[in-house]
Amino acid sequence: MKGYVFHGPGQSAWEGVPDPGLKEPTDAIVRVDAVSVCGTDLHILAGDVPEVPPGTVLGHEAVGEIVETGSDVRTVRPGDRVLVSCITACGRCRHCRAGRYGQCRGGGGWILGHLVDGTQAEYVRVPYADLSVHPLPGTIGDEDAVLLADVFPTAYEVGVQLGCVCPGDTVVVVGAGPVGLAAIITARLFAPERVVAVDASAARLESARELGADAVAEADEDPGQLVADLTDGAGADVVIEAVGRPETFELCTRMVGAGGHVANVGVHGGPATLHLEDLWSKNVTLTTGLVDTRSTPTLLRMAVAGRLPGGRLITHTFPLDRMQEAYDVFGNAAETGALKVVLGGERREVVPAYEV
Amino acid sequence: MKGYVFHGPGQSAWEGVPDPGLKEPTDAIVRVDAVSVCGTDLHILAGDVPEVPPGTVLGHEAVGEIVETGSDVRTVRPGDRVLVSCITACGRCRHCRAGRYGQCRGGGGWILGHLVDGTQAEYVRVPYADLSVHPLPGTIGDEDAVLLADVFPTAYEVGVQLGCVCPGDTVVVVGAGPVGLAAIITARLFAPERVVAVDASAARLESARELGADAVAEADEDPGQLVADLTDGAGADVVIEAVGRPETFELCTRMVGAGGHVANVGVHGGPATLHLEDLWSKNVTLTTGLVDTRSTPTLLRMAVAGRLPGGRLITHTFPLDRMQEAYDVFGNAAETGALKVVLGGERREVVPAYEV
Repeated sequence: MKGYVFHGPGQSAWEGVPDPGLKEPTDAIVRVDAVSVCGTDLHILAGDVPEVPPGTVLGHEAVGEIVETGSDVRTVRPGDRVLVSCITACGRCRHCRAGRYGQCRGGGGWILGHLVDGTQAEYVRVPYADLSVHPLPGTIGDEDAVLLADVFPTAYEVGVQLGCVCPGDTVVVVGAGPVGLAAIITARLFAPERVVAVDASAARLESARELGADAVAEADEDPGQLVADLTDGAGADVVIEAVGRPETFELCTRMVGAGGHVANVGVHGGPATLHLEDLWSKNVTLTTGLVDTRSTPTLLRMAVAGRLPGGRLITHTFPLDRMQEAYDVFGNAAETGALKVVLGGERREVVPAYEV
Repeated sequence: MKGYVFHGPGQSAWEGVPDPGLKEPTDAIVRVDAVSVCGTDLHILAGDVPEVPPGTVLGHEAVGEIVETGSDVRTVRPGDRVLVSCITACGRCRHCRAGRYGQCRGGGGWILGHLVDGTQAEYVRVPYADLSVHPLPGTIGDEDAVLLADVFPTAYEVGVQLGCVCPGDTVVVVGAGPVGLAAIITARLFAPERVVAVDASAARLESARELGADAVAEADEDPGQLVADLTDGAGADVVIEAVGRPETFELCTRMVGAGGHVANVGVHGGPATLHLEDLWSKNVTLTTGLVDTRSTPTLLRMAVAGRLPGGRLITHTFPLDRMQEAYDVFGNAAETGALKVVLGGERREVVPAYEV
């Protein structure tokens, strides 16, 4: 089969790789019908995630059909249409038993496209299939569903839930890429007083407004002053970092008010400066997190009910074998205007929104 | 009267100052019968708290007797023996109404010995007396009580409560000074699996053991390895920073396990490096905080019941007019072995434990 293989920082290709097979009785093999590219994949290519072994097929988001299951798999069977979660869970370790699947110590966690071959391929082996795929109702489209593999649960759990968004809050989302936009959408579920979006791109801020931001600020327009003005100098109740750079994290810690929360969602490749001389007395809570995907069944029900406009984050679709082009378009979002790019397998009809 | 006056970094003296008088109808004047020196006072003298105006009488912990009250004071009257809290609270602002007294925006918060004259004097004016002093039962001694002005509520609220210590946790306390020791004592109220103390001083670690630490590590003995060994590589559930230096904060972030908490209690004069490249995916919660003293009435009841051995943290007592000597002993703890130093007013019998 073909897959998109990481060969070290800056080096990757869509190329022939061995077909995956069952290795453990808890495995399933999934034919990939829809797959996406994540900002985290760009971080891997940039060298920010050094533990990824060269030779790994990338990708950790997919919708597909089960084609084979190991003898211990109980909840899905060949022919089932499923969402492949970005998080694999053994279900038995200390962390899984506490619902912290992202921290699984039993061989799961974020492993697809990270420590084992991932979903940017024609087929993927999914370990611990019972806890790592979600059967999909026929009423949800592939585009809406694939956003639930990572983007929405990450924004919701790591941004909105860890950030403790509450009714009446001023919420600032720094970074209006797919995860930031999903944070805006899911923050609104908690009736904040206002959501403020910050990004370097005017186009992304326009998307943020369409999806629920009440105010927007370009990154170089002193967003801290805007937040101070909006809050009578008190600062934000919750700031969500959805970029993954030291300067955006530090901006978040300047905008948060006393008693507030900074929820880091971004993938970071280096340290940031934490200004404890300002923060030590401010009763600030800073959180980091890898998604657990504990919320995926809930989000799936909401998407089926039409309450999560996931598909609106998708700007470009491609056939699966145009993976490199999809990376180029996604990685060059400032020029292409890309938000989420989705690729379809050979059995799906796909309409490239981006014409080369 | 006499008071201990800050004249800029490194400069301070016990000297004549004007007697305090009522300025607002919500004020009380308290005769100081017992007062202590806090690590925060040393941070002020080191220049770490630049907003303190030269000319300010230092000190934010005291036990004394009300000698005069303004016309609006309802809950105490002259003759009452009271604890003067390190936090003053207007009771009416947004933060006070939420119990976040430390963040009071109505003219309170930490102001004594910081923005207005403090307790290291013969008399002190306490603004908003109704919410800023606590009447003391006669059964509690001054030494036990004065530890409840700051040390115990800070350790309990900012360390143990914000750190979310739970039954079965591995708790590490970095810094075994008075606040760190009070964190060990109050962490044990939540039945952790173990408490590990880290300090540069073997003598302080011995105190830590006596007060409830199950294991101790000198700072240069690789405490991170000890914690990893004790937790089967998982890291600590809660790490409490009770020093206030970048290197100790960074040590805390290395010792915390996935899903764990780092509760910063220390007063910091500069930034630390936050290794987000390691922490972004670890579901770590970092908190900072100024004490609210919301717990003081509870802690007072526990102290009366003999459940908080506050007095055991006091190593040296002095007459009030030997304030400079008390600072010297406290500031040179590595040689003197000082933990908490307490000074008594002229009406108290005091026994200097430290003979010069």
